[in-house]
Amino acid sequence: MSMDIIKQLEASYDEMVSIRRYLHMHPEVSFQEVETAKYIQKFYTELEIPFQANVGGNGVVARVKGTLPGKTVALRADFDALPIQDEKNVPYKSTVPGVMHACGHDGHTAALLILARTINEFKNQLAGEYVFIHQHAEEYAPGGAKPMIEAGCLEGVDVIFGTHLWSQTPLGTIEYKSGPIMAAADRFSITIQGKGGHGANPHDTKDSIVVASQLVVNLQQLVSRRVNPTESAVLSVGSFIADNAFNIIADTVKMTGTVRTFKPDVRDLMENELKRVLEGNCYTADCSYSFLYERGYPPVINHVEETDYVAEIARTVPGVSEVIESELLMIGEDFGYYLEEIPGTFFFTGAMPEGDVFPHHSPKFDFDERAMLVAAKTLGIAAINYHLK
Amino acid sequence: MSMDIIKQLEASYDEMVSIRRYLHMHPEVSFQEVETAKYIQKFYTELEIPFQANVGGNGVVARVKGTLPGKTVALRADFDALPIQDEKNVPYKSTVPGVMHACGHDGHTAALLILARTINEFKNQLAGEYVFIHQHAEEYAPGGAKPMIEAGCLEGVDVIFGTHLWSQTPLGTIEYKSGPIMAAADRFSITIQGKGGHGANPHDTKDSIVVASQLVVNLQQLVSRRVNPTESAVLSVGSFIADNAFNIIADTVKMTGTVRTFKPDVRDLMENELKRVLEGNCYTADCSYSFLYERGYPPVINHVEETDYVAEIARTVPGVSEVIESELLMIGEDFGYYLEEIPGTFFFTGAMPEGDVFPHHSPKFDFDERAMLVAAKTLGIAAINYHLK
Amino acid sequence: MSMDIIKQLEASYDEMVSIRRYLHMHPEVSFQEVETAKYIQKFYTELEIPFQANVGGNGVVARVKGTLPGKTVALRADFDALPIQDEKNVPYKSTVPGVMHACGHDGHTAALLILARTINEFKNQLAGEYVFIHQHAEEYAPGGAKPMIEAGCLEGVDVIFGTHLWSQTPLGTIEYKSGPIMAAADRFSITIQGKGGHGANPHDTKDSIVVASQLVVNLQQLVSRRVNPTESAVLSVGSFIADNAFNIIADTVKMTGTVRTFKPDVRDLMENELKRVLEGNCYTADCSYSFLYERGYPPVINHVEETDYVAEIARTVPGVSEVIESELLMIGEDFGYYLEEIPGTFFFTGAMPEGDVFPHHSPKFDFDERAMLVAAKTLGIAAINYHLK
Amino acid sequence: MSMDIIKQLEASYDEMVSIRRYLHMHPEVSFQEVETAKYIQKFYTELEIPFQANVGGNGVVARVKGTLPGKTVALRADFDALPIQDEKNVPYKSTVPGVMHACGHDGHTAALLILARTINEFKNQLAGEYVFIHQHAEEYAPGGAKPMIEAGCLEGVDVIFGTHLWSQTPLGTIEYKSGPIMAAADRFSITIQGKGGHGANPHDTKDSIVVASQLVVNLQQLVSRRVNPTESAVLSVGSFIADNAFNIIADTVKMTGTVRTFKPDVRDLMENELKRVLEGNCYTADCSYSFLYERGYPPVINHVEETDYVAEIARTVPGVSEVIESELLMIGEDFGYYLEEIPGTFFFTGAMPEGDVFPHHSPKFDFDERAMLVAAKTLGIAAINYHLK
Repeated sequence: MSMDIIKQLEASYDEMVSIRRYLHMHPEVSFQEVETAKYIQKFYTELEIPFQANVGGNGVVARVKGTLPGKTVALRADFDALPIQDEKNVPYKSTVPGVMHACGHDGHTAALLILARTINEFKNQLAGEYVFIHQHAEEYAPGGAKPMIEAGCLEGVDVIFGTHLWSQTPLGTIEYKSGPIMAAADRFSITIQGKGGHGANPHDTKDSIVVASQLVVNLQQLVSRRVNPTESAVLSVGSFIADNAFNIIADTVKMTGTVRTFKPDVRDLMENELKRVLEGNCYTADCSYSFLYERGYPPVINHVEETDYVAEIARTVPGVSEVIESELLMIGEDFGYYLEEIPGTFFFTGAMPEGDVFPHHSPKFDFDERAMLVAAKTLGIAAINYHLK
Repeated sequence: MSMDIIKQLEASYDEMVSIRRYLHMHPEVSFQEVETAKYIQKFYTELEIPFQANVGGNGVVARVKGTLPGKTVALRADFDALPIQDEKNVPYKSTVPGVMHACGHDGHTAALLILARTINEFKNQLAGEYVFIHQHAEEYAPGGAKPMIEAGCLEGVDVIFGTHLWSQTPLGTIEYKSGPIMAAADRFSITIQGKGGHGANPHDTKDSIVVASQLVVNLQQLVSRRVNPTESAVLSVGSFIADNAFNIIADTVKMTGTVRTFKPDVRDLMENELKRVLEGNCYTADCSYSFLYERGYPPVINHVEETDYVAEIARTVPGVSEVIESELLMIGEDFGYYLEEIPGTFFFTGAMPEGDVFPHHSPKFDFDERAMLVAAKTLGIAAINYHLK
Repeated sequence: MSMDIIKQLEASYDEMVSIRRYLHMHPEVSFQEVETAKYIQKFYTELEIPFQANVGGNGVVARVKGTLPGKTVALRADFDALPIQDEKNVPYKSTVPGVMHACGHDGHTAALLILARTINEFKNQLAGEYVFIHQHAEEYAPGGAKPMIEAGCLEGVDVIFGTHLWSQTPLGTIEYKSGPIMAAADRFSITIQGKGGHGANPHDTKDSIVVASQLVVNLQQLVSRRVNPTESAVLSVGSFIADNAFNIIADTVKMTGTVRTFKPDVRDLMENELKRVLEGNCYTADCSYSFLYERGYPPVINHVEETDYVAEIARTVPGVSEVIESELLMIGEDFGYYLEEIPGTFFFTGAMPEGDVFPHHSPKFDFDERAMLVAAKTLGIAAINYHLK
Repeated sequence: MSMDIIKQLEASYDEMVSIRRYLHMHPEVSFQEVETAKYIQKFYTELEIPFQANVGGNGVVARVKGTLPGKTVALRADFDALPIQDEKNVPYKSTVPGVMHACGHDGHTAALLILARTINEFKNQLAGEYVFIHQHAEEYAPGGAKPMIEAGCLEGVDVIFGTHLWSQTPLGTIEYKSGPIMAAADRFSITIQGKGGHGANPHDTKDSIVVASQLVVNLQQLVSRRVNPTESAVLSVGSFIADNAFNIIADTVKMTGTVRTFKPDVRDLMENELKRVLEGNCYTADCSYSFLYERGYPPVINHVEETDYVAEIARTVPGVSEVIESELLMIGEDFGYYLEEIPGTFFFTGAMPEGDVFPHHSPKFDFDERAMLVAAKTLGIAAINYHLK
């Protein structure tokens, strides 16, 4: 059975590429992926595969039932793009100014569509049920996973698998990791309210630039002194804005930043200590402040058993030459929401292109399209064999 | 003689007010004071007082010769306005959106014009020569004083007097000070060039917000540790801009600020140490930087003998109730350029309005118009008696 | 065989306790453990077990050969005490003022001596050779492990096992960990040379307290910004001394501190960046400095295969109720030197006492003596079965 | 009269020198000047000049009455030495190990004794009364001036004059200044109470060295941002002590320092803001603290009229070649207490030695002894002519 599906996927590779390239030329940013969703719907409509549209937003969920009894396995691909101007020089370059598939979600979608069609073709020989979750809005919190779950996309589902094509990892490599693999990604916004005035007369003012600078310096101590050094945490201030004439003392400074953690207690510690350090610094300088801490995606915490299962099965997939443990990634993913509900695992599929390699979200980002095939095979083999576990 | 002139000035008070109000309603920002200059030229043309137009820009210089031999005394009034929206509720409110006489230069000009006319009327009884310097662009470096001097406005001049109407000082008070009275006002611009990246991955970046914050904190030590505590110096960072998404580590930070000092060696120290601290901080963080230090106006350093002379004579002027020593002001004035060339003094004429008092450069700034008369009298009496010294 | 040895160890428990208590009452600090070494030598002499004394210092190495061919297995116990005043209230309290076995090395030694005697009793039924390494000076860098290795204690040895009784872990628990388990522990010493003077005249000085304080604050950025957040690193300044009159500006500040890491590249990064930040800060303040960075013990990096082996075998040891993965510990151990030479593993043996629990190096530290038996059994069973691997 | 006294002083110069050298060889530290006080008493006893001993401690006050009616004028000289080892190579080097007249008080005393004798000789020709205040303990707060005043040394006194021999100013120069001339000198002591622990485990501790370092850095903003830049203020941390092993995180840090100001409102501001910054920093780090702020000597604020008088009269004194305005000095003097009670002035008498010049309190400090004669003459002429004012 597995070999049949693998062969069929390999035979469909060119189609996968043309789907991906079409999507690449027609990207849509998070929460505005209307045409992409229609494209997916049309694909399933033509195959007469039943699906639900507008699941929790622009999400699309298709279901294929095998004839034999078995588990219900969900596979997820996201399909939103980014507000980045495509700077690649390729025939399939984005046609939408300022919008680009700079993270590989086009590839995820192409791989999952072809895999869904293939599983559908073989459904008479398959056990269980297959749920194809096409998720919108992964790139922008609060994300699409949460509303899709609330809309019922995981109903009756026993396990979920997902993957990310990864341009930093060689083609043929699968990276798995039990437990935490991607971080909780929170956002904070701070306004320091001092008292403005003429740059010549500091004593009549409360210099909010000095206070905010002091705060940035102080905040380094959260990671260096307050978090257990065997745990991971990041606090970065991303913006710091006090836009005045040179001879003015700034009335206010506005800052935003991000906090990354893997564990709930570390996350709580960072939020509480950030608040404390802000409060103490403002007291020191007799300033006031506003503070907003928004929790973003939870960490992606893979389930041990399902991760071991996928790692083991990946070693048997033709085209997979290496299966290794992934490093921890401080970046976020809303796949964590699914794993809070049901067992499953999220892994990386090596997609490093030949020639220059650009990081995800770079305006020159691209990936080796053969990685889509590796992803489709690994997800497919993992899905259809899950009943034998 | 003095009493005749005083009486004549008092008799012209209403005209002074109407000139001031006309100018107040028609303000022009620095270096664009074309109509204001024409207004001044017209005034002198109608009186057949000889003048030079376009002196070093929009400057106007009129000269009146007494019939007796004597010194040549210059009197200076500036006439530019500020890019501020007038928020006062008065009949003579600015008619130009976003432009306003928020510093009293309209009053300086009205007082000097009426004084010039008065001196011209009495010239047959007067000794020496009188040079009326109507200066453009005091508010904006590099200012109008320097090009007017370069264009010859001080040629043959023995002494110069100037005053500023001052809304923080009661009407009837004259404030003088020998030696430094207003600060050198310099400007600096810094770009910290780090290495941007994802907020989750600080180790792949050089966080320019942290470096710039460290710099702001470090720079406090220039005043607290390096300058002699019995000298005055100010360093203020006015703008700090790193405008990114919350989950980015800033590639660059741009900052501007001002340095205020009274003495050349302190000024040199501040510039050199600012450079050193910037350099050391960037080395510490392995970042690069650009640095521009622009020297603005020199300090206003009043000459002792001329200051004593004006202070003494001010005590005799009807309408002057108090003559006191001024505090040091950390703000700048390009009158300092004149005093680098010839003896003279710059003093403050109390102009605190009844009711609410707003600081100079406030959108609600106004002054007691009777102060114009005090200024005109004090300048006039000081000028015509200078030959007797 | 294993059961015989286990029974024999259990029968010798009281002796183990009395050896431990004797050592506890007669502690000697690192590099001065002369009487302790003699005690160990006497033990082996009486049993006619061959040993070498004064190995790399006060170290003692005994060897027992089984009659069957097999691997050579080393077991290590350290035997130095700490310069701490014993504050416990027990009959076996330290009799030496200011010196105390506050880390459990007395228990390590008692367990290993009894284990050596037991293995010696059964040597006719055992394969391979057993090397009992009694190491001096674990508590104080440069430690005893290095000179003992240089003196040949590992010659012909195939594998080494060691354990630490751990008062924070429940009795019956064994904690293992593949790869890094304990950190590299380095030491640094810094002198900031400013220019002293009167507290009233900062401009005539270079204030070394301000420079050193700035340095401490800056150094927080090494962990928060420069180390990969998924790696572990600690930098702590332990001492900061500028001992002057209140009205003096400090000429010099002396500081010492420690750096903890697990990986060579992180260790190098920390050392280099510490140097860079020190250099940059001193440049900023026009001060000079001296800097000494002394690498201490390497990290303890357990070998995967040997760790898996011990973890598996520990599950079979009577008295071991739980075998779990250890957390990373930022503290150091010179056992890492052995593991740089040959395969092996270092694990923790739960020794939490009933009643109050005090941390290692506390003046009230004690442990549950039954843990010695668990340690002896686990080391023993691991050693005699290693040949079957 | 003046000329007679001047001639008599000049004739006594050698005696002045030998008194000074005797005192220089027999220095006593503040509050322990028993033998020095006896020496002074003996001097007056032999001359049968009435005096009071043990005034407010070791103070000695002698009085000489002129036969004519007039004002009562006090002249003050201090006579304590410093706990400094004399490193000069001169015949009159200190004979007391670790104690030295390193500030010139020996010279003050010699000059005043000879002046007192001279005035006594001419008392039949003099008006008014002369009070010779020999003050102990100027070097060490709370000082001798306050208890001497409380003991009545200023009773009936109309005016007081005092001078300091000054090694940084050329011989022949008198430096006067109206208003503030020397600073208020306060002392503060801070303990930061964190939570100690192992250097490897910062998250279990509150690192008091980091908190205290942050505090030192923050405190720079008091002078740079909160004090009016046209005012003078200094805050210096003199000691910073956390004396631990390198691998410890400091439980506590102890700091002391000084604050220097000239005006009561600036002094209050500094004390309050120091408290606020300490409190805010400790809140930020969740630490506690203790804080002691001890006000030392008040500023020396010379009275305008008396200062003008002395400056004018100094110009007439043979041996005075230049009379100039003094700079502000941030150092303290308890002469300020006298000036809080009655009018008077404190001035500097140039005493720069030929050859190497060392600052006051240097172990190599010395002064040009001829300055004693200048001081005696200036004080004397100022005193006897005060009645003519």
